[in-house]
Amino acid sequence: MIRRAWVNGTLFEQGEIAPISVMDRGLAYGDGLFETIRIESGRPVLLPLHLARLKASATVLGITCDTVTLEDAFIDFIAECGDAAAKIILTRGDSDRGYLPDPEAPSSLIFLLYPAMNWPAELACEGVVAAVCQQPLGISPMLAGHKHLNRLEQVLLRQELAGFAGAHEALVSDVDGHVVEGVFSNVFWIQHGIVYTPCLNRAGVRGVMRQFLLQEMSRLGLQLCEGNYTVTDVLAADEVFFCNSLYGIWPARQMAGVECQPGPITRRLQQCWSEMLGT
Amino acid sequence: MIRRAWVNGTLFEQGEIAPISVMDRGLAYGDGLFETIRIESGRPVLLPLHLARLKASATVLGITCDTVTLEDAFIDFIAECGDAAAKIILTRGDSDRGYLPDPEAPSSLIFLLYPAMNWPAELACEGVVAAVCQQPLGISPMLAGHKHLNRLEQVLLRQELAGFAGAHEALVSDVDGHVVEGVFSNVFWIQHGIVYTPCLNRAGVRGVMRQFLLQEMSRLGLQLCEGNYTVTDVLAADEVFFCNSLYGIWPARQMAGVECQPGPITRRLQQCWSEMLGT
Repeated sequence: MIRRAWVNGTLFEQGEIAPISVMDRGLAYGDGLFETIRIESGRPVLLPLHLARLKASATVLGITCDTVTLEDAFIDFIAECGDAAAKIILTRGDSDRGYLPDPEAPSSLIFLLYPAMNWPAELACEGVVAAVCQQPLGISPMLAGHKHLNRLEQVLLRQELAGFAGAHEALVSDVDGHVVEGVFSNVFWIQHGIVYTPCLNRAGVRGVMRQFLLQEMSRLGLQLCEGNYTVTDVLAADEVFFCNSLYGIWPARQMAGVECQPGPITRRLQQCWSEMLGT
Repeated sequence: MIRRAWVNGTLFEQGEIAPISVMDRGLAYGDGLFETIRIESGRPVLLPLHLARLKASATVLGITCDTVTLEDAFIDFIAECGDAAAKIILTRGDSDRGYLPDPEAPSSLIFLLYPAMNWPAELACEGVVAAVCQQPLGISPMLAGHKHLNRLEQVLLRQELAGFAGAHEALVSDVDGHVVEGVFSNVFWIQHGIVYTPCLNRAGVRGVMRQFLLQEMSRLGLQLCEGNYTVTDVLAADEVFFCNSLYGIWPARQMAGVECQPGPITRRLQQCWSEMLGT
């Protein structure tokens, strides 16, 4: 249930239907971007990284994005909301029929406020059960890395995940058999003290939590390898964890039916995340 | 400029803003499908093929679609509209945050009516100039063939096409170098009397006009090869043509800077199309 919405400057309280024009290119073509932001005691966590990613992707896709104005409006929007999950949607705005955008049309900006996620604390503490999706993720160098609105593959993968009894997440590989991410997470694993994560230049989302962890790993002097790996590589790891901006870090306690253990590097990174949250 | 809109049972006339909820999954994830239909003197051209494709794709993606009710409402919607272009958008409807759909949520149905396309008649008669896009189309076996709402790649390719001075269409290849389609068309070519077209099981849209032409080719006894081909194969052809449901068939008169000629098989298929239109 949505708590509050803001559409191009107009605020809608809970229970009101927040409308957007059917001419919006976000609807017509998924022509836009989004961010999902954890709000902790009224504070938007990692907001600078979210806004930097939104701005960078908007620039690449040619969508107008004034992050200064956006940030002010967003801070107003989340005022006194306590713990919550917020979403920013930026689209290329309205247009006539056809793929070619009107360069003069203003972009559309939407904020949505949801209740905080109530994942059980033991998922971060004891770990999660991870399956392996069979449906292969597509490859798109034009779109890889961006958190754009073309997410139909994730919708189908999320339904596949729902079919794995007891699984909390699932590894997703692309059509070439390279592991890309979880269904709604990025993924890291550790072997012999080295951290591994998929290189995301052909598929996947460069998550803000992933970005935060890359910075923390650098600060901690951890060795990181970004590359092309397979499910077999992940299953051979000493530690595996998933991450996203809402839940933080979930260690795997079972991968594809095989028991595993949250390890020391995962625990160290969870500590960094707790410090960032101030908890 | 939109002439008329219909959103989940409510009609909006020209000038009125037709709204959809910001919770719609079409906006959030491109979680839906669309059809673009030519209306000729009030008659929706190839409507059975459009509805069959919509129904088949909705079934694969698990989106509820009652085509009987849809058809009745659509026929009412286009009443007395003369020549026009209509769009049907079917989405998985509203949902809370997250990729997992609510299986109980009703789908959303939108009709949009636009003025008829006014492409110059000489494009079909004398032919079009076609460029070759450099940006590679992605590969997605999960989504290939469907006319879904994840069209951000097409938006970027359409902008690339707009940068080719004088070009009307452009060949698009996937990341493996296989020709897939035009930016807003399917593509066919003829060599030594055999018709070739890309196999679309890894990328591209199975266009309704393409489907109509495949039926006509079968009826005419033409030999057809669907497979994996390169731009070099297309440039070596005797005839090349693009097609879509709005403009019909455009022969190429120039491909990547090389002059070519509309040929007899293209002309024969254009005749089939004219007969279908009753013109």
